[in-house]
Amino acid sequence: MQAGSPRWRRRSQARPGEIVQAALDVFAEKGFAAAKLDEIASKAGVSKGALYLYFETKEDIFRAVVREAVVPNIDMVEAMLAQATIPFPDLLRLALARIEAVVETSRLGAVAKLVIGESRNFPELARVWHDEVVSRMLAAMSGALERAQMRGEVRLGDPRLQAFSIVGPILLGVIWQETFTPVGAPPAPLQSLIRQHGETMIAGLAPRAGVSS
Amino acid sequence: MQAGSPRWRRRSQARPGEIVQAALDVFAEKGFAAAKLDEIASKAGVSKGALYLYFETKEDIFRAVVREAVVPNIDMVEAMLAQATIPFPDLLRLALARIEAVVETSRLGAVAKLVIGESRNFPELARVWHDEVVSRMLAAMSGALERAQMRGEVRLGDPRLQAFSIVGPILLGVIWQETFTPVGAPPAPLQSLIRQHGETMIAGLAPRAGVSS
Repeated sequence: MQAGSPRWRRRSQARPGEIVQAALDVFAEKGFAAAKLDEIASKAGVSKGALYLYFETKEDIFRAVVREAVVPNIDMVEAMLAQATIPFPDLLRLALARIEAVVETSRLGAVAKLVIGESRNFPELARVWHDEVVSRMLAAMSGALERAQMRGEVRLGDPRLQAFSIVGPILLGVIWQETFTPVGAPPAPLQSLIRQHGETMIAGLAPRAGVSS
Repeated sequence: MQAGSPRWRRRSQARPGEIVQAALDVFAEKGFAAAKLDEIASKAGVSKGALYLYFETKEDIFRAVVREAVVPNIDMVEAMLAQATIPFPDLLRLALARIEAVVETSRLGAVAKLVIGESRNFPELARVWHDEVVSRMLAAMSGALERAQMRGEVRLGDPRLQAFSIVGPILLGVIWQETFTPVGAPPAPLQSLIRQHGETMIAGLAPRAGVSS
């Protein structure tokens, strides 16, 4: 079979995906500054030269990691939260179950830690993470909260800050796992944390008896 | 006046405090790895040699920063949360008002960011921050929640995870200010966030009607 035949082209097209997966692993393990392009290339089974065929800089690779490994999950949570016919408590439970699955099966916590830790030297990481992940997640959550307030299903308040209340403890849990568990702290049980927090938030956001909205 | 006279000794004893304040500023601005002992010494108005009279390593300086600039605030919140005679909602409001004041007037967010970002290369930072700040804060909060559960003032649940629910959004707010606001994201209004979150948590943790504890 010759180079250029369909099979070879398919293999070649698959490479960016393999590079992204390898890069995610290396970023999660080493951080951004210390991640070596050589190591990403060798993990992905390509030459460093081939890496440069697809990506110009390490920031480009980071952007691809976010777009391919994280953004599809954001799309899904966003679509979930846009459903206006589901009562808010059920909607929140659905969204949190999805977030729980993502957090448990991906290196999301390690990437969040990397962004927080290296944003001073690489502001582009914070910009990409904010624009493509955090702000979209908060907007989707705030939108659902705002609509639920209008339907009288959620107590009145700043929906963006209500979204911070929902998301914050999940961030604390993943940061805990990446930062304190490795130095001997008892683990943060993410599944129990997200579930109990969800029920606490549902109760906490319920409209107050006697307060009309 | 001679060296060795009371005035000179007082001046000399004051130096560790000045070094700690200078170190806090430099750590907050540069991070831990990039903080230079020369810069800390010069900001504190001492020679680098004098710095070594008080501290053997940069980790020692970090420990002193935590003990002198952060731990007294933890002591205060801890003492506040230990008061068993105040109803839980008032206790939480008092503790959050204190935390709000600390967060607004100190570089706590910058130090938290530094710990998260540099724990891989300097696990000692995570260990000190966990042992002297985070675990004490969580234990004080969990203890207050557990006692409130026993008094029937808070719904039953894992008190450590309830404490995560209370603390998480504050962490998100301070990390946001340090990470995303500098790259152009709208600021996280910490005061409004902490107050609204406190009221949401008070409602969310209230005992359920019809559920006996």
